[in-house]
Amino acid sequence: MRKAFHDELAQLCSQLAEMCALAVSAMQRANQALLDSDLSLAEQVIADHEHIAAYNRRIEESAFRLLVLQQPVAGELRTVVGSMHIAADIDRMGALAVHVADISRLRHPECALPDEVRASFTDMGAQAVRLAQTAQEVLVSRDPDAAARLRDEDDAVDAEHRHLFTLLLDRQWEDGVCSAVDVALLGRYYERFADHAVEIGKRVIFEATGGRPLHKKLA
Amino acid sequence: MRKAFHDELAQLCSQLAEMCALAVSAMQRANQALLDSDLSLAEQVIADHEHIAAYNRRIEESAFRLLVLQQPVAGELRTVVGSMHIAADIDRMGALAVHVADISRLRHPECALPDEVRASFTDMGAQAVRLAQTAQEVLVSRDPDAAARLRDEDDAVDAEHRHLFTLLLDRQWEDGVCSAVDVALLGRYYERFADHAVEIGKRVIFEATGGRPLHKKLA
Repeated sequence: MRKAFHDELAQLCSQLAEMCALAVSAMQRANQALLDSDLSLAEQVIADHEHIAAYNRRIEESAFRLLVLQQPVAGELRTVVGSMHIAADIDRMGALAVHVADISRLRHPECALPDEVRASFTDMGAQAVRLAQTAQEVLVSRDPDAAARLRDEDDAVDAEHRHLFTLLLDRQWEDGVCSAVDVALLGRYYERFADHAVEIGKRVIFEATGGRPLHKKLA
Repeated sequence: MRKAFHDELAQLCSQLAEMCALAVSAMQRANQALLDSDLSLAEQVIADHEHIAAYNRRIEESAFRLLVLQQPVAGELRTVVGSMHIAADIDRMGALAVHVADISRLRHPECALPDEVRASFTDMGAQAVRLAQTAQEVLVSRDPDAAARLRDEDDAVDAEHRHLFTLLLDRQWEDGVCSAVDVALLGRYYERFADHAVEIGKRVIFEATGGRPLHKKLA
């Protein structure tokens, strides 16, 4: 019974890492689609979200089954409960990548990004993808120190996000209202995507240490 | 033991309803602060978020304690696990009300809202508050039919949100880029606030019926 339990728990953790890999890929492609106004890539991201949503359902069902059949305690209980929270975070990351893809699709064949913010989105995209990759690694290693570093990586996204608003608001923006609205919403999507990766790190720390989970910053 | 368990479970459910009442009040005041450029009201909403965050921590701790000590199954397990998800949703609702308050505070003594969108935000604010109130009632009644109605109420918010983007994008917006960015982000905050209320309804339906939780729409 315990052996079966540990196998199921290990499988739950692998599923989370696989699900996170899908979110990495979704953001990578959404960002590329945005930079290149690549309609078919954007549509792929949108269509593929179903795989992420399916993982979310499966993980929630597996976690429930483990709670009912195995009644885990202590660290194992934290892992099972945490897996549901983490799956919800990854699901949101996927949804935010879809939002990025949606804006590229809506503006196609135009590019949603004016030239002056291309560099910002190139950087924010790379940073967001890196955060999701770190989250994925942390879901495998369960290393609380690596998980804690997600917060530092997020600072770079926040800095770029603030810089974006400086461009939008503090100087003469010449690309019109529609473009400003797109850029503001896109910035918000990248920032929230990164926040969810940080949340995953906090959950892993909580599971590893049993410490109270640090609660969300107000983002 | 079972009596103590049921008392604790009932207390967990009351705490959720109390927490939701705080989110109702936060959005009510944030919306008022936005419409009236009321700085002190906005600051109150921001400061008061700590109470919502404290409820989130307490509910998560209580739920863990119940899982460890009582090892609930079936409907009771769904209620305990669901309470953590619902608390996370209410926490986000509070955070989104804070974002609305933040924008009023940043623009004070100016009003963040140009005249042409005042009516939209009056409506969306009232709709968002009503959704949160319905969610609060549903957390007490645990009535799946009432919970299902949250989805219909949300349609009104989505319609108003779409109308807002029509105003922003489809005609000559004369209030400048800064204002357009504020309005776009504000619209997003109200829409997400309402989505979380709908999620609460879905959780209550899941807990009451044991059916698979309907998963999030891509918002």
